Amino acid sequence: MILVSKSQIKLITSLQQKKYRNNLGLFVAEGPKVINELLNSNIKLHSLFSTKEHLFKVEKLWVISENDLEKISFLKNANNSVAIFEIPKLKEITNKTLTIVLDAIRDPGNLGTIIRLCDWFGVQQLVCSLDTVDCYNPKVIQATMGSIARVNIVYAELSEFLNKSKLPVYGACMEGASIYNEELPENAIVVLGNEANGISEKIEAILTNKITIPQFGKQKETESLNVATASAIILSEFKRFTER
Amino acid sequence: MILVSKSQIKLITSLQQKKYRNNLGLFVAEGPKVINELLNSNIKLHSLFSTKEHLFKVEKLWVISENDLEKISFLKNANNSVAIFEIPKLKEITNKTLTIVLDAIRDPGNLGTIIRLCDWFGVQQLVCSLDTVDCYNPKVIQATMGSIARVNIVYAELSEFLNKSKLPVYGACMEGASIYNEELPENAIVVLGNEANGISEKIEAILTNKITIPQFGKQKETESLNVATASAIILSEFKRFTER
Repeated sequence: MILVSKSQIKLITSLQQKKYRNNLGLFVAEGPKVINELLNSNIKLHSLFSTKEHLFKVEKLWVISENDLEKISFLKNANNSVAIFEIPKLKEITNKTLTIVLDAIRDPGNLGTIIRLCDWFGVQQLVCSLDTVDCYNPKVIQATMGSIARVNIVYAELSEFLNKSKLPVYGACMEGASIYNEELPENAIVVLGNEANGISEKIEAILTNKITIPQFGKQKETESLNVATASAIILSEFKRFTER
Repeated sequence: MILVSKSQIKLITSLQQKKYRNNLGLFVAEGPKVINELLNSNIKLHSLFSTKEHLFKVEKLWVISENDLEKISFLKNANNSVAIFEIPKLKEITNKTLTIVLDAIRDPGNLGTIIRLCDWFGVQQLVCSLDTVDCYNPKVIQATMGSIARVNIVYAELSEFLNKSKLPVYGACMEGASIYNEELPENAIVVLGNEANGISEKIEAILTNKITIPQFGKQKETESLNVATASAIILSEFKRFTER
């Protein structure tokens, strides 16, 4: 058992902030499930702190007390291990495959869920607007359940990226064609917009196809679908055709 | 401006607990969006506390201070209004329409999202196992965005309910037939299982059809879909056929 030093505590807590994550090129993951997924990926471990000695077979393991774990965990209920990983280098984005584009997604849980959905549906590219929440935010990392290791995520000026692309650009809008009646291509770009405001005007102007998930309930008051559940349905629709 | 009395504070805070909600037949909703949705429904208002005098046109309005609002709000960031409503009387469950059944859903956010999905897709019946989180839990109410007023929710001993039903009983399982290849009926029961353990053995034995959302990613490590995103895809699949 070793004591976590003050400088280590300072390092870890600083990684709650995007500024320090970017400067140091490091991010935090917690709990054995997420940490193990990342250990089994190409992402490099910086250091690992755990109250359990035999849970991980890595060199950079520090066995610590419950008390120290509390000090470095970002979670309400710390889950025995905290790890620091190196932010991986970006792979190049290709112009040939189904790509999800996020326009100003702000909620870490939503981004995490969308990353997990991309992983499930084999979507390897996710392009986020510069004002989308940082994918190395600890809340995003926890919500991805480790699938962040399998999706290539880049942040870019969206209009520039979209204007360069030769693929059709679909966007989820309140008033578009029913997604159930569209012949969806295997390769395309799909834009999902901000939780409160949808897709921004500037990006909406670039869309080649507006699609919508029709509402079946009769009540007009019904709030629009949450962006994460809408993403689930849209990804399912794009993939179900390639499956048949 | 009036002061909130100690007994009112005690009443409201007691409603965080299921025991008191059931005894008193009351539940709490917060924020103008959710409160307005409920005011426009059949659900009866008990009392409304707001820092804004002109936001609501109801008799039972108490205009209160920010300080008092903080005392009665369950939210991290109180959103100007807190209302108490009467838990509505249960309508009878019919045996003829698409019905969602939840087997031990524990996360309030998941239940709230599923209620909102039911509302969107026009599913009016939701049957929950007795160990599913209470739908009048404040976190569920907030996550429903008001759609709880439009979905008939009952708690029941599931095996008893399912054995009585004459509709086919579909269940979301890890190893079932691909949902994309099934001819889904308009009227059926669809069972969704617990976040960690899926559908319980006892209920699985009653299923007439096991369905699954196929995984497209190549990585076997990928965590299964979250129950709320799985629900979105399954409801969409059941409804897309009736639409065509």
